[in-house]
Amino acid sequence: MKTFNAEEVAKHTSPDSCWVVLYGHVYDVTDFLSSHPGGSKVILQLAGRDATEEYDPIHPPGTLEDNLKPEAKLGKIDPQTLANPAKPAAKEEKKDEVDPPLESLLNLDEIEELATKKMSRRAWAYYYSSADDTWSKSNNNLVYRNIILRPRVFVDCTACDSSTALIGTKVGLPLFVAPAAMARLGHPDGEQGIARAASKFGALQIISNNASMTPEQIVSDAKPGQMFGWQLYVQNDRAKSEAMLVRINKMADKFKLICLTLDAPVPGKRELDEKSSFINAAPVAAATKTGDESSRPGGGGVGQQLFWGTAADLTWKATLPWLAKHTDLPIVLKGIQTHEDAYLAAQYAPQVKAIILSNHGGRALDTAPPAIHTLLEIRKYCPEVLNKIEVWVDGGIKRGTDIVKALCLGAKAVGIGRAALFGLGAGGQAGVERVFEILKAEMETCMKLLGAKDISALGPQHINARMVERDIYDGAAGLDKMGLWTKSKL
Amino acid sequence: MKTFNAEEVAKHTSPDSCWVVLYGHVYDVTDFLSSHPGGSKVILQLAGRDATEEYDPIHPPGTLEDNLKPEAKLGKIDPQTLANPAKPAAKEEKKDEVDPPLESLLNLDEIEELATKKMSRRAWAYYYSSADDTWSKSNNNLVYRNIILRPRVFVDCTACDSSTALIGTKVGLPLFVAPAAMARLGHPDGEQGIARAASKFGALQIISNNASMTPEQIVSDAKPGQMFGWQLYVQNDRAKSEAMLVRINKMADKFKLICLTLDAPVPGKRELDEKSSFINAAPVAAATKTGDESSRPGGGGVGQQLFWGTAADLTWKATLPWLAKHTDLPIVLKGIQTHEDAYLAAQYAPQVKAIILSNHGGRALDTAPPAIHTLLEIRKYCPEVLNKIEVWVDGGIKRGTDIVKALCLGAKAVGIGRAALFGLGAGGQAGVERVFEILKAEMETCMKLLGAKDISALGPQHINARMVERDIYDGAAGLDKMGLWTKSKL
Amino acid sequence: MKTFNAEEVAKHTSPDSCWVVLYGHVYDVTDFLSSHPGGSKVILQLAGRDATEEYDPIHPPGTLEDNLKPEAKLGKIDPQTLANPAKPAAKEEKKDEVDPPLESLLNLDEIEELATKKMSRRAWAYYYSSADDTWSKSNNNLVYRNIILRPRVFVDCTACDSSTALIGTKVGLPLFVAPAAMARLGHPDGEQGIARAASKFGALQIISNNASMTPEQIVSDAKPGQMFGWQLYVQNDRAKSEAMLVRINKMADKFKLICLTLDAPVPGKRELDEKSSFINAAPVAAATKTGDESSRPGGGGVGQQLFWGTAADLTWKATLPWLAKHTDLPIVLKGIQTHEDAYLAAQYAPQVKAIILSNHGGRALDTAPPAIHTLLEIRKYCPEVLNKIEVWVDGGIKRGTDIVKALCLGAKAVGIGRAALFGLGAGGQAGVERVFEILKAEMETCMKLLGAKDISALGPQHINARMVERDIYDGAAGLDKMGLWTKSKL
Amino acid sequence: MKTFNAEEVAKHTSPDSCWVVLYGHVYDVTDFLSSHPGGSKVILQLAGRDATEEYDPIHPPGTLEDNLKPEAKLGKIDPQTLANPAKPAAKEEKKDEVDPPLESLLNLDEIEELATKKMSRRAWAYYYSSADDTWSKSNNNLVYRNIILRPRVFVDCTACDSSTALIGTKVGLPLFVAPAAMARLGHPDGEQGIARAASKFGALQIISNNASMTPEQIVSDAKPGQMFGWQLYVQNDRAKSEAMLVRINKMADKFKLICLTLDAPVPGKRELDEKSSFINAAPVAAATKTGDESSRPGGGGVGQQLFWGTAADLTWKATLPWLAKHTDLPIVLKGIQTHEDAYLAAQYAPQVKAIILSNHGGRALDTAPPAIHTLLEIRKYCPEVLNKIEVWVDGGIKRGTDIVKALCLGAKAVGIGRAALFGLGAGGQAGVERVFEILKAEMETCMKLLGAKDISALGPQHINARMVERDIYDGAAGLDKMGLWTKSKL
Repeated sequence: MKTFNAEEVAKHTSPDSCWVVLYGHVYDVTDFLSSHPGGSKVILQLAGRDATEEYDPIHPPGTLEDNLKPEAKLGKIDPQTLANPAKPAAKEEKKDEVDPPLESLLNLDEIEELATKKMSRRAWAYYYSSADDTWSKSNNNLVYRNIILRPRVFVDCTACDSSTALIGTKVGLPLFVAPAAMARLGHPDGEQGIARAASKFGALQIISNNASMTPEQIVSDAKPGQMFGWQLYVQNDRAKSEAMLVRINKMADKFKLICLTLDAPVPGKRELDEKSSFINAAPVAAATKTGDESSRPGGGGVGQQLFWGTAADLTWKATLPWLAKHTDLPIVLKGIQTHEDAYLAAQYAPQVKAIILSNHGGRALDTAPPAIHTLLEIRKYCPEVLNKIEVWVDGGIKRGTDIVKALCLGAKAVGIGRAALFGLGAGGQAGVERVFEILKAEMETCMKLLGAKDISALGPQHINARMVERDIYDGAAGLDKMGLWTKSKL
Repeated sequence: MKTFNAEEVAKHTSPDSCWVVLYGHVYDVTDFLSSHPGGSKVILQLAGRDATEEYDPIHPPGTLEDNLKPEAKLGKIDPQTLANPAKPAAKEEKKDEVDPPLESLLNLDEIEELATKKMSRRAWAYYYSSADDTWSKSNNNLVYRNIILRPRVFVDCTACDSSTALIGTKVGLPLFVAPAAMARLGHPDGEQGIARAASKFGALQIISNNASMTPEQIVSDAKPGQMFGWQLYVQNDRAKSEAMLVRINKMADKFKLICLTLDAPVPGKRELDEKSSFINAAPVAAATKTGDESSRPGGGGVGQQLFWGTAADLTWKATLPWLAKHTDLPIVLKGIQTHEDAYLAAQYAPQVKAIILSNHGGRALDTAPPAIHTLLEIRKYCPEVLNKIEVWVDGGIKRGTDIVKALCLGAKAVGIGRAALFGLGAGGQAGVERVFEILKAEMETCMKLLGAKDISALGPQHINARMVERDIYDGAAGLDKMGLWTKSKL
Repeated sequence: MKTFNAEEVAKHTSPDSCWVVLYGHVYDVTDFLSSHPGGSKVILQLAGRDATEEYDPIHPPGTLEDNLKPEAKLGKIDPQTLANPAKPAAKEEKKDEVDPPLESLLNLDEIEELATKKMSRRAWAYYYSSADDTWSKSNNNLVYRNIILRPRVFVDCTACDSSTALIGTKVGLPLFVAPAAMARLGHPDGEQGIARAASKFGALQIISNNASMTPEQIVSDAKPGQMFGWQLYVQNDRAKSEAMLVRINKMADKFKLICLTLDAPVPGKRELDEKSSFINAAPVAAATKTGDESSRPGGGGVGQQLFWGTAADLTWKATLPWLAKHTDLPIVLKGIQTHEDAYLAAQYAPQVKAIILSNHGGRALDTAPPAIHTLLEIRKYCPEVLNKIEVWVDGGIKRGTDIVKALCLGAKAVGIGRAALFGLGAGGQAGVERVFEILKAEMETCMKLLGAKDISALGPQHINARMVERDIYDGAAGLDKMGLWTKSKL
Repeated sequence: MKTFNAEEVAKHTSPDSCWVVLYGHVYDVTDFLSSHPGGSKVILQLAGRDATEEYDPIHPPGTLEDNLKPEAKLGKIDPQTLANPAKPAAKEEKKDEVDPPLESLLNLDEIEELATKKMSRRAWAYYYSSADDTWSKSNNNLVYRNIILRPRVFVDCTACDSSTALIGTKVGLPLFVAPAAMARLGHPDGEQGIARAASKFGALQIISNNASMTPEQIVSDAKPGQMFGWQLYVQNDRAKSEAMLVRINKMADKFKLICLTLDAPVPGKRELDEKSSFINAAPVAAATKTGDESSRPGGGGVGQQLFWGTAADLTWKATLPWLAKHTDLPIVLKGIQTHEDAYLAAQYAPQVKAIILSNHGGRALDTAPPAIHTLLEIRKYCPEVLNKIEVWVDGGIKRGTDIVKALCLGAKAVGIGRAALFGLGAGGQAGVERVFEILKAEMETCMKLLGAKDISALGPQHINARMVERDIYDGAAGLDKMGLWTKSKL
């Protein structure tokens, strides 16, 4: 195999001839430019140099092999000829500050604070960002503050059991890790670190379609009975999705559900993420832009790149039958935001076993409702849904009391997304464990102070949600009365 | 033609003899002092020197010819005798800072921020200012934050069409440029720059009665099918208004409507604008004030100057018939703020084809209701209005989601005022294009995430406006029940 | 008359022998110590030195003569022996800053800001302070922000007349000066300066019982038809009050009403005022305190001193008949804060001609309701009151729109207290005129933009008070239903 | 008795041999490590040195004797060999600042501010801290701000009597000191200082189960008729609780009630307290941790230490009968937070004579309801409770108006916790007296301004609680209607 020096590689930086160095090898990616899910611009910014550091944390193993022809691998790079990157020095300097021990971090805000210090700006911006003016992200949490707890006294709560079962599988906690992409951006432990942490608490982990490790890697040392789910973003190229389902179906002892994400048929506008990419990006000649790319406002950002190729044409009638052909696993629909869609989902039981009320962590559409709104809508307009399928929620969880409040309203499980990633950023697997430890302790303290011995004892009598209830959708009493439109057909 | 030197001109600075230099010529404006719409004080502050820089951006071509007798033009100025103004140096210094590229500005706030840096203090104060304590201006935007979106899932929204038709004319967007005065204050491209930007998006532009360019100039290179409106402030001297209508009627291929502004029969109190004028103004001897002027609190400001001569005696019965005599163009009434007036306007269809719910960008009466309040009032008390005439809104638009929310409630079009001016200030025509680009992209992302393929698919089922609804006027249920007054007659 | 030197006077600083210098004379005030309305401590702090500067601005002429026996005046002070006070230097230094011209101050906040700079800390603290945590003071204004105006269009409002009549007397404005004590603390023009300013606008002035000038002085150059009222704090020593009524009755051509203040039977806790007195006070030996005084928490402050001697035992049955014996002037009851008391007051028509809804500018009881609440209560529970007597309001007025909103709800007049005093502090009589000028202009601009030609045209249809209405007392629907108490008897 | 030197003591710092110096003596506490209520870690941090300063303020006399065998007392310490602690110097330096006189502190916030300066960080953190995000603590106070007072006029309120009776015993004030632990942490006067201050105002004091002095000490110089209560946290080792009851029963002339605390069966998460302990703690080898301790998140804090040994298995059926066997004193149940439990408590009259609506000062469960919510719930759903037993409240009291508002809603007494402790911290017994003085003066001023002569005159007609009422639990109208759960059985 031929060996190149860096000088030679550095000449290939145009759409006509674009080389990059990855893991010590030189690749000619010219032909791949137009089909890169993140757009050609992202590659051209890295052209002619060693892109391993940027490439590695966001691509699972096998990506190069899946996407490039064998002849694209031109040879080796002579490592002596690569300039020493200046960054590591800065990083070492930062490491002089000793991190506080994880056990001294008392809540999720403190973990996020440490993660913010330790992670790269790019990773932080990708995890932290949300759509437009972050109204939905903020409100996801605020809505829990506005629900008042109602502690009962003279109840023996010496023992308190927070285990439960989700769509028939026993779990240690009603808390699950929601699918979130690119865990290795935050820490080398990546999705597998989350899996190992989850196993200690018996918690379900739903693995992102855009994970930075393969599903096989992530579940490789799972404990017996450990529960996983696989998130599916249906691709325009359905064959790709079908191939993934084949892989997941083979691990049906571990993967107990397919989570079909519906709340982001197109990417939201996450300005912090876009800004971060814009700032870092070396300017690329306008000539290299395709018409398609130039229409994207801003710099794209990690979030937008991940969406390329995702199908926006899913429908109740076409997508669920297609899915039934390719997997027997139970389906969980993620991103339900109205009682109308919850009602519809329940018609698809038993193929659909659960729905996740979610506004995508506020990352898709700003001013979309928090999950608690949708849950209250369901209670008000179609409570029977809660009997037909399981209703899970995510978004805005910061405290054990938040989890308990959702459970009191009928949710069977509550997901965390950023919290797990920030735990990872703060301390790898141990940081994720600290997140679980804090939430489990807070949740059980809350249950005891409410006078509830186990999950099944929790009910709406334990909360006062009146401040929230008066804000939920009131189609029947309000705008619907105007006679200008007919109620959307269920 | 005689040539004067600056020293001689500088002697004429009193109400008895007042000269100014404009575009290289010397004018005797003594006789015109008392009839200047902005009051004599404004001219006297500039007397005896070259006033071109101050005069130019707020007067369209032809103003001198229309208002001064030929003999008032005394001759040329010897440019050698004019002192070099000190300002340009400062300006160059400022230009050392390189502006960020427009494509790096991700939202309207960032565009406003750049415009604020680049524009003169006076222009900024005029655009930015609003009445009293800016409650209405702030609330115009805030009210949109309090409307929650209701995304539907499993809808194929691969394609999304945001074109529509306004009073029968097809437009590329439901977004129009509301009439706003003095665009050249912000950038030399002026109203024509806005027109060229609008043409790229097929958007309607309503040209201000106080534009700093003539309507003929503004539409001079319009594309075929490009839609314009002309804003009319009826003048006390009706003949002036009639003359303008004659000019507009001649361009009926481009001007598809006359927009009669009603929400500002007298100027609001825009303190920032007044303050800016007060600070810059050289002190003028009290003796030069007329009784009328001295009664104006504060320094007047650009806004107050523009209002001089505007009629405050318009009525349903007199004004609309007068207008019918002078134009066949459809009438759009701007500044409707109650359902009662919306109901009345609908009685004047088909002469009146649309109304614009507006509180003049919060610039007229502080604590006047946001357009969304009035729209909700209409839906509640007289929804039939929405069938008889088109209802448009303006004020407070910052995001594509804001536009979509107004459309969901029945608005046919949504106007932007300051956003276009700040776009102009940030980058001339290209800045305005960036504003359109951002809003169109945000609007279409929102529609897709709601599951709406086109404008007609949007309806009140897509929003939860309950937080706003409970604040709207409730005459019937509340104060009206007291029996102390009878309902205002519709 | 004997002449003393300062050294000798300085020896008399104890409760056994207490001398002070006032206006160049030496007084022995030992016997008066125990009967000083402000307590002996205040005098002892000034004992042995020239107290003129502290004494003068808070005592009207004649106070010495009324309270001291002739022999208490011991003789003259030798002015050479008095140390030059150090303060004037500091004052001059401050005067190097040129005050902005009054006409450049655009609103009441800017006037207050200037007054705050110019006035003594003690005067400012007395005017500015309010009870406890200032909730009522803040809310007095905030409640107006939460009322939305409803402008009507197509109304000819070229002319706009803001004159009106109050209990039968024509006034130029529905705006009156509420009784506020100690105007000379703020500016030497004092209450007479306010009177002269009011005369320019035809406005009613109600003179405080604790004015720093005599009523005769204040009205001495009133214009024909200028309307005054006299505020009465009934004294424990009724004879004192009766004597004052004799003096006022003699000036019945000017004084058109007696304003009986009811909302402060005991002084509120104005911490800023108390703090200011505490800080300035020289420490006084504990031995000099009487039991009574030592029970007063804090330092007392100007406000508490003024209250000494005020009767707390007024009743409907005893006080009004007593008043009828001593004056024929119409009675205005100030400080009504519930609809129940408004209802009761109306039973005492025609002796009682008006009530002023007031919480004493937030200075009496914190979290007392703003006048607008009480006005809405009256409209809801006993609207007939508005027909039987006039209802005036005060508290929190900052804008012309505030005035208009109160009028729309049925108030006949709106009072300002601090605003007049801060106007005085900012520029003496001219400052008060500027306050009137601003409010009148704002009020008329508001009326025109609402489409109201005169005061009588204003009604509740011009406002949306829903945000406030939902917070007003709802005895019948809420707590009253509990059956634990019977409705307070009207 | 043997004398040790410090060097020798310093060798015993492990779980195998742990010595400490207390009050000049050396103790071998190795055997006691595992049974220390605060966990072994706390002792190990102090091992091998003089721990008197840390030990003394949180342990009442007799603790050593009760818990250690006689042979654990090894001998005396040679004081010469103890290093001089460095801290005192820093303390003296601080004392250079002269404290403001207590009479210059005008309200509870100013007293807290001074106490915060004077107290140790650890004491402050223990007193100040509350659960999670301090929502409940903040809202405890805020809820009073949202209740509006309704002053009546023309009421003779010259005299005003604020005395009352609690469960049959006459007290000088409706204000009591709620049980709060560890008063000597804040000031050496400790709980006895509070008792002496309370006696001056005839106020009830409920002594904490975790007091830093013995009950005998605290009441040792009580005045005749002075009323005390004893707080009971039932211990897992019931014999300990029974022994305490024997002691209390003997002082039945002073102790008029047993206050059984129910709102904290397990400790809340007080992060400030935990953080403070974590920061101060010397690192302890992980090997010394027991499994039980290592599961506690964070450092524990004073609050968590105090809870060890407290029973979490109390029930209506078992606990009250057990209590009846061991005392004849009336029972007051503290920590009722729902109307359901208030209703249940009333069934246990006359053994139960009163309940205290409390969320433990926001220290147990964050987002638990303020007492005022529960009081309003009782008025709404089971007002008869107010006739059967007395209802007291605590939490959030900052002003005399707060007290009056609670009384107007039917509370018979109002407790302060932190306020008394901060008074103690600010000035020992005199500081607590200042707290009583301020609140009593504020309360009586409020009563007079409302027109209430005594406590019995206060009623719901004096307040407008509508802003709070709309937020209280509305089971019947809201979530309860959903049919998904049956109302919790009373």
